[in-house]
Amino acid sequence: MEKIAIIGSGLIGQGWATVFAQAGFNVAMYDTSDRATDVALKAMKTRISDLVEFNLVAPSDAPKILNRIQGAESLNEALDGAIYVQECGPENVDFKREITTKLDAIAGVDVPIASSTSGIAASRYCEDITGRHRCLVVHPINPPHLIPAVEIVPTPWTGSEIVSQVKELMIQCHRETIVLNKEIDGFVVNRLQGALLQEAFKLIGSGIVTAEDLDKAVCDGLGLRWSFMGPMQTIHLNAPGGIAQYVERYGDMYRNFGLGDYSSVDWPQIVDENLGAEFEQKTPVSDIPDAQAHRDRTLMALLRHKAEIRADAAN
Amino acid sequence: MEKIAIIGSGLIGQGWATVFAQAGFNVAMYDTSDRATDVALKAMKTRISDLVEFNLVAPSDAPKILNRIQGAESLNEALDGAIYVQECGPENVDFKREITTKLDAIAGVDVPIASSTSGIAASRYCEDITGRHRCLVVHPINPPHLIPAVEIVPTPWTGSEIVSQVKELMIQCHRETIVLNKEIDGFVVNRLQGALLQEAFKLIGSGIVTAEDLDKAVCDGLGLRWSFMGPMQTIHLNAPGGIAQYVERYGDMYRNFGLGDYSSVDWPQIVDENLGAEFEQKTPVSDIPDAQAHRDRTLMALLRHKAEIRADAAN
Repeated sequence: MEKIAIIGSGLIGQGWATVFAQAGFNVAMYDTSDRATDVALKAMKTRISDLVEFNLVAPSDAPKILNRIQGAESLNEALDGAIYVQECGPENVDFKREITTKLDAIAGVDVPIASSTSGIAASRYCEDITGRHRCLVVHPINPPHLIPAVEIVPTPWTGSEIVSQVKELMIQCHRETIVLNKEIDGFVVNRLQGALLQEAFKLIGSGIVTAEDLDKAVCDGLGLRWSFMGPMQTIHLNAPGGIAQYVERYGDMYRNFGLGDYSSVDWPQIVDENLGAEFEQKTPVSDIPDAQAHRDRTLMALLRHKAEIRADAAN
Repeated sequence: MEKIAIIGSGLIGQGWATVFAQAGFNVAMYDTSDRATDVALKAMKTRISDLVEFNLVAPSDAPKILNRIQGAESLNEALDGAIYVQECGPENVDFKREITTKLDAIAGVDVPIASSTSGIAASRYCEDITGRHRCLVVHPINPPHLIPAVEIVPTPWTGSEIVSQVKELMIQCHRETIVLNKEIDGFVVNRLQGALLQEAFKLIGSGIVTAEDLDKAVCDGLGLRWSFMGPMQTIHLNAPGGIAQYVERYGDMYRNFGLGDYSSVDWPQIVDENLGAEFEQKTPVSDIPDAQAHRDRTLMALLRHKAEIRADAAN
């Protein structure tokens, strides 16, 4: 089986190791501290047995998955024969530049070198690296082995074949890929989270609501639909005429909240130019009643699931 | 059993009727159109039998719940003996003023008159109403019988005993209450949703990401944690030292995204003044490792649940 190199054995590195080994890859994990790698390899056992307990890994697969993950004593050993490198080091531009330069000098021809950074666009450190065409960000969400979404963020120099290759690898590893067409600070996930947090801090800071109640607005409200349906599909199903009608009906209401610079972000125009056709293909307006019924059935199953979890916790 | 009046028999009125009847209340539903009420009462049957199918209502309770819901031929009949009024009419200030004035003239002394409006602060229509002390917004999320969160939004004139009484009633109906200390347009839920949507439209409109991929960032990413843990508790568990350390580590990153007016919303100060003590009580920093392990177990159970739902759909 093919081999993947993971640089850094912290929580993110461990999560990635689980993901790749579950998909059948051999994983070489390298850390500047041998001791850290040993600790990580031990922690993997707990991770895998937790997955077995929740029926996410078959019991007979557990030892095989664990056996696929090995420590490496040097970068050279980790990268020898690797088809993909996932760097999980500290969040620091200088560190990223230094380690990526080293990885580029060792990794095989056209092997992608991906960083797990949650905030640093790869162009900020790889411009002067010889193999910058194979550098990019592949950002997981914590904990990586439990959250399927990954963001693939190419720099202006990343080859399109590298992006395709990485996307295919991630799909093979049962990840849900979010591919950015252009780099932007914070990518998509943390920008969406940041926009919501900024409003949350504003509401709490001005004494309108407590953090406890605000949390309920999400975990007993918005977050239920969002756990199986994104925000755009959610609003598409919240008007009988779909997203265009939703924006027509509620666009002014949101605009009046003063939540951002609406002069540069014209919701109806974006629906018209970017979204109308996409949504008409995905869920045509005539299918909305069925899609709403399906949403409600999924919500009922989720409510049942949450009730069972609460009952288990109480026992 | 006590009686609750629902004014308006659309989807929101039907959802509320289900909530109150499930909690054991008699429900009188009034609509200006008798035919609309008949259609609604028929639709209730499907709603209740769906709840039975998902084990959210015991089969033997279904006919009892249905029997508790009756149409009323007039406002007088609907409000006669009602201990609470939930208005579910069109989203229009003039309509709200007119109907609330009528309801105030009929409803018993100190019976709360709540509007389901998703955007109109009650002070915009009830200032000149005699019983303005009992007027407020109680905002459900669509569909009301499947999303537990409700926002309770008093006006400057709403009596504190009315707020307490409504909160108690909602808890009795198994709702999760978000109580606002002051009115603000959009309340909490739609402001949080609006902030996230505004950023989403910006990212899609500028060609950085497709709506399909952006939806994945939420339903396979942020939304998984948010379905059982709010955004503030999420960040509290995303740094070993809790929310204060999270803001210290990532506050500048978010600030650099340019997502809003940070000059008036100082995250570290808000943590310091409003949140530090609350979170130290709820989940002390020393308990964070256990809380993280619990989060991960809840995530694994959710992943398992989603996999089962997908397998059912495929069969």
